[in-house]
Parts: sequence; C-alpha cells; structure tokens
Amino acid sequence: MFLGRIVGTLVATRKEATLDGLRFMVVRRLSIDNDDEAGYVVAADAVGAGVGEVVMVASGSSARQTVYTDKRPCDAVIMAIVDTWEVDGVEKYQKSTP
Amino acid sequence: MFLGRIVGTLVATRKEATLDGLRFMVVRRLSIDNDDEAGYVVAADAVGAGVGEVVMVASGSSARQTVYTDKRPCDAVIMAIVDTWEVDGVEKYQKSTP
Amino acid sequence: MFLGRIVGTLVATRKEATLDGLRFMVVRRLSIDNDDEAGYVVAADAVGAGVGEVVMVASGSSARQTVYTDKRPCDAVIMAIVDTWEVDGVEKYQKSTP
Amino acid sequence: MFLGRIVGTLVATRKEATLDGLRFMVVRRLSIDNDDEAGYVVAADAVGAGVGEVVMVASGSSARQTVYTDKRPCDAVIMAIVDTWEVDGVEKYQKSTP
Amino acid sequence: MFLGRIVGTLVATRKEATLDGLRFMVVRRLSIDNDDEAGYVVAADAVGAGVGEVVMVASGSSARQTVYTDKRPCDAVIMAIVDTWEVDGVEKYQKSTP
Repeated sequence: MFLGRIVGTLVATRKEATLDGLRFMVVRRLSIDNDDEAGYVVAADAVGAGVGEVVMVASGSSARQTVYTDKRPCDAVIMAIVDTWEVDGVEKYQKSTP
Repeated sequence: MFLGRIVGTLVATRKEATLDGLRFMVVRRLSIDNDDEAGYVVAADAVGAGVGEVVMVASGSSARQTVYTDKRPCDAVIMAIVDTWEVDGVEKYQKSTP
Repeated sequence: MFLGRIVGTLVATRKEATLDGLRFMVVRRLSIDNDDEAGYVVAADAVGAGVGEVVMVASGSSARQTVYTDKRPCDAVIMAIVDTWEVDGVEKYQKSTP
Repeated sequence: MFLGRIVGTLVATRKEATLDGLRFMVVRRLSIDNDDEAGYVVAADAVGAGVGEVVMVASGSSARQTVYTDKRPCDAVIMAIVDTWEVDGVEKYQKSTP
Repeated sequence: MFLGRIVGTLVATRKEATLDGLRFMVVRRLSIDNDDEAGYVVAADAVGAGVGEVVMVASGSSARQTVYTDKRPCDAVIMAIVDTWEVDGVEKYQKSTP
C-alpha cells in the first residue's frame, strides 16, 4: 500500500453502472517522510474517510476485496485511515485528535 | 484510477477475436492539476465517451470488470466520464455543459 | 494497453513447459506521437504479427485472456495490430498498405 | 519481489474490517547493492518480521496468497526475512547473528 | 516479460511456509540492447537457471502460473532462459555454447 492525503472529491455522473454509490476521492501521494509528491490516484472510499485525512490505498485486484468494490472496475481503494507512522524511530505523522 | 483526456481513436482491424466491437480510445494522462502529461494509455470504452472528454481509467484485472471487457485481453478501461474534481478546495476541472 | 513496434524476435529453447509453441517478440514502446522510447517488453504474439508492425500490448493478468496464453506464465501479449491512431485530430500513424 | 528494510510501523485504527489483526510495516526499498532508496511501501507482515530487518516483499494479487492476507484489500506482504544475498560474487548483505 | 541477467542468489531461512524449496535469484534488468540497468527483481526460478544466465521474467499473477509458484506469495518468476534476441536486425545477445 502507499500513503496519501485526501485532497478532494471527484464527481462522475456517467459511469459504469456497478459504480453507482461509490465515493471517489482524489488522493495525493505522500513520501515516506510525509511530504507531498506529484503522484496521485483517484480511489474509491471503503472506510468513510474525509478530505484532509491521511490514508492507505490498496491497488490492483486487491482494491476489489471490499464489499464496496467487489467485481467492479475499480483499481484503487482507501482501506484504512492512518493514525500514525514512524521511520527510524521518528514519528512522521500523527493524526490530530478533535 | 487515473485521470485522462481522450485525445483520439485507434483502429485495429486485425485483433484477438474477442475484442471485436470494442472501441479503443487514446487517453493522455492528466496531472492532479489538470495539466497534460507525457504518459498515455489506449483504453477500451465502457461508457460511451467521446474525443475531448475527461475520463477515469481503471487498469489491470479491474479493467475486465465490465460487460464489454469481461474475459478479454484488455488491461485499461474508461469506466467514468468526469464532471468535476477539486484539490485543496480549488476546482481543477469542470465539464462544460452544452 | 500501450503501443509498440515489433523490433525483433527472441529465442528461448529452455522454458517453462506450457510456453512451448508461443512466439516471443521484442516490442519497443512508442510515445503517443509515435516516437521510439527506451522502454520495451517481450510479449507473446496472439495475432500473427511480424517484425516492423505497430501493435497494442496488454499486460498483467489480461495478457492471459487468449487461447495462446491462458494459464501460462506470460504477462504481456500482442492482442492487436494497429492500422492507425490520431491525437488531437492529427494522424500519428498509418499502416502502409502492401 | 523487491528487497526492503523495515524502518517502522504504522497504526490505523479505522480500517476495512477484514484487516483487523494485520501488522502494517513501513518498508524502505533497497537497491541491488543494499543502499537505501526513496521508494517505500506499507506491507502486511506474514512472517513475524521486526523493525530493522531486511525483507522480501511480494506485491499485487500475490500479496494475498497467505493465510493473513487472503481475500483482504492488501497489495503488499512481507513473505520472507532475508539472510543474505550476493551480486556478481560479492555479498551485499548478511543478517547479523545475535 | 522483461529481460534480465541472474547476478546472484538470495537466502531466506524464515519465510512464508509455502515458499519452502523455491530458489530465489537476484535478476538485474537489461535494456533492449543488453546493457545493465539499475533495476532488479528477486525472482523464483522455474527452469533451473544459474548465475550468469540471461533470462525472461514474468511478473504479477502470471508469475504464479507454474507448478513451483502456484498459490504462493511470489510475484516474479524466471520462466525461460534466453538463447538469443535481435533488435532491428542486429543480434543483441547470443548464449555462449559450452
């Protein structure tokens, strides 16, 4: 999986029929140190994530292993909201608590 | 999924038999900010998209999860026509209304 | 799918048993404008293509969706010979007629 | 598979239900010569690996071929802890013995 | 498939149980012209290849289509030993005969 930050939403009225009801989020890739990268993906949301949250994205056939994406033409899914990660003992991200 | 703009069509008379009837579109990749990128893909069309439209493309085995592409040697499918997306609160694309 | 030009053939006598009889072609990637790129792939041929022809290549599990490649350890297949494609109204390639 | 070093752990309380119990590790990619690379992946652990260890990671649908990851939205798994590898007769890594 | 040269072996005592008995080879990627590239992959061997040999590697789910790798967490397999290939009429590699 890679790490990303949800930076926005995407609306697509005309789409393959089985995709009705899926929420599509624009996810900017993050480096291992939590810096923005140029890359992005549009992913379906399987966990009720919102704009601004840092998430994990699974790609390929693994993106279809949720009840929301099963048997659908979808190759990227948000499958977790990240609380924190660390690299070499340094915390790189900590989800803010409300 | 990634975002792209359909820039043209492709004709291939001689092809694997199960591909008969599929429409192949040349899709240029777009950056998260809606700028043209060098990358492209040739994708089958599952939603009746036309040249000039901005679309979402699913790749890999997920590209076969439509009635048009099921069990066919096709690794990219246009599965949605994009109306709009935004990044950090800024609208990056808005489909023009006729 | 990506576009490529068949630049040569590859011979491999010792190979996984199920691959017997497959023809392996060296395919150089082409840009969207029909320029040579550094990238390449070795692909199985499912359409009787020959050296010099411009073709479409499907990758991953989609490469196994032909009678020639089904259930075989093959991740790239030539599934169409390209006649022509265009980009923004400009024809980028036209197969020469004999 | 690619080679990587486990540099940290990741916590995600809110995640797709089937992922409960999986341990997620942040894995930095290593070059063929055992140098750190910029790339990384977050992988599920199938072998009881710990921070600091050098491991092999399998990606895509292959990442789901373990009892921990079967049918789950997970596209990267640590499937082996590396003892040693060599390149052109030179040992590039040797796991230290306790 | 891509072309590579086997540059070494890898030992991993602790690994996912189904991988027991597989031989893991370090494969350096080769360019279309048979030059070394920086990229590499660790691949399971399905054809009895040895260090120094030039081989073809299949990736992803296609890597599991051999008796050695079926249903195992393995995303790259050596499925052929290359005898020769040519590019634009020029032989780029010829296996030496003993």
